[in-house]
Amino acid sequence: MSKFEEKTLQSTEIFKGNVISLQVDEVQLPNGRTSNREIVKHPGAVAVIAITDTKKVVMVEQYRKALERTIVEIPAGKLEAGELPEMTAKRELEEETGYLANKWTYLQSFSTSPGFADEIIHLFVAEELTRSHSNLAMDEDEFIDVHEYSVVEMEDAVLSERIFDAKTAYAVIWAKMNVK
Amino acid sequence: MSKFEEKTLQSTEIFKGNVISLQVDEVQLPNGRTSNREIVKHPGAVAVIAITDTKKVVMVEQYRKALERTIVEIPAGKLEAGELPEMTAKRELEEETGYLANKWTYLQSFSTSPGFADEIIHLFVAEELTRSHSNLAMDEDEFIDVHEYSVVEMEDAVLSERIFDAKTAYAVIWAKMNVK
Repeated sequence: MSKFEEKTLQSTEIFKGNVISLQVDEVQLPNGRTSNREIVKHPGAVAVIAITDTKKVVMVEQYRKALERTIVEIPAGKLEAGELPEMTAKRELEEETGYLANKWTYLQSFSTSPGFADEIIHLFVAEELTRSHSNLAMDEDEFIDVHEYSVVEMEDAVLSERIFDAKTAYAVIWAKMNVK
Repeated sequence: MSKFEEKTLQSTEIFKGNVISLQVDEVQLPNGRTSNREIVKHPGAVAVIAITDTKKVVMVEQYRKALERTIVEIPAGKLEAGELPEMTAKRELEEETGYLANKWTYLQSFSTSPGFADEIIHLFVAEELTRSHSNLAMDEDEFIDVHEYSVVEMEDAVLSERIFDAKTAYAVIWAKMNVK
């Protein structure tokens, strides 16, 4: 049993959507009292730090409705059913940026919002890039511009908050340490 | 107008909870077609990289129902209505760990899951720590153990996935660069 484990007394599905679903779990706390936990279920995702031969990192610029603005992120995408994270990473990098990579390295996985969501992002580094085609294979409701940022350009984008999400903030500081 | 902006045609609130609410927005895409965006609304949060005089980082260990396990995170908490992030940061650090800090530095803010949630975490560094009391003021449904990790201990915890969330993964790599 995990420390401070909260036993599920009842789980109620509130919503089942295309991307996420929502459930409310009634739990028994370690002190015996009960509480409710609001939990977003998500299929999980991958994100890719793709490094060009000129030591730039490939970025995608897209509108994020939840934030009501356009931000610049490392390429990422949801896991499809039955798909291994490395397959998703290869598929999303090609679909969103038109790049293939010869060298793939798994970096780490993390939960984005452990307080209310089960989403886990699996982070990969892609190197030895080649162009497969223009970025024409993206999902029909995706509109994306592709950029390539040096470490300095990434740091500027953090300061101006064009880079504004956790996985990309992580990628920037990782690149600062590792892309030389 | 933001590039690739998605105009809201209709917004439907699905659920209003204690921590999050959920809405589905029907949007008009840049190509004129319509799509739905499932959006979790969250009040926003703070997280604190608190560094002791012996160059360790203060961590809290707690059960996360969404992940169904206990993980180790930097101290964090939700913004209360009308509360400035720096006030929340000071309150949460003291409530969760019993530490006060004399020196506060704002680091950056990021969205945790821009694809489906509006949650933004404001990240602070706290130094020159003093103990105020034991960690007795936590919320009634919070059960927390406090730890202090060196950079090496944090890196081990990342490898064993006891550290497993985005803000703490960021903190580890930030500490590796900045805590010497």
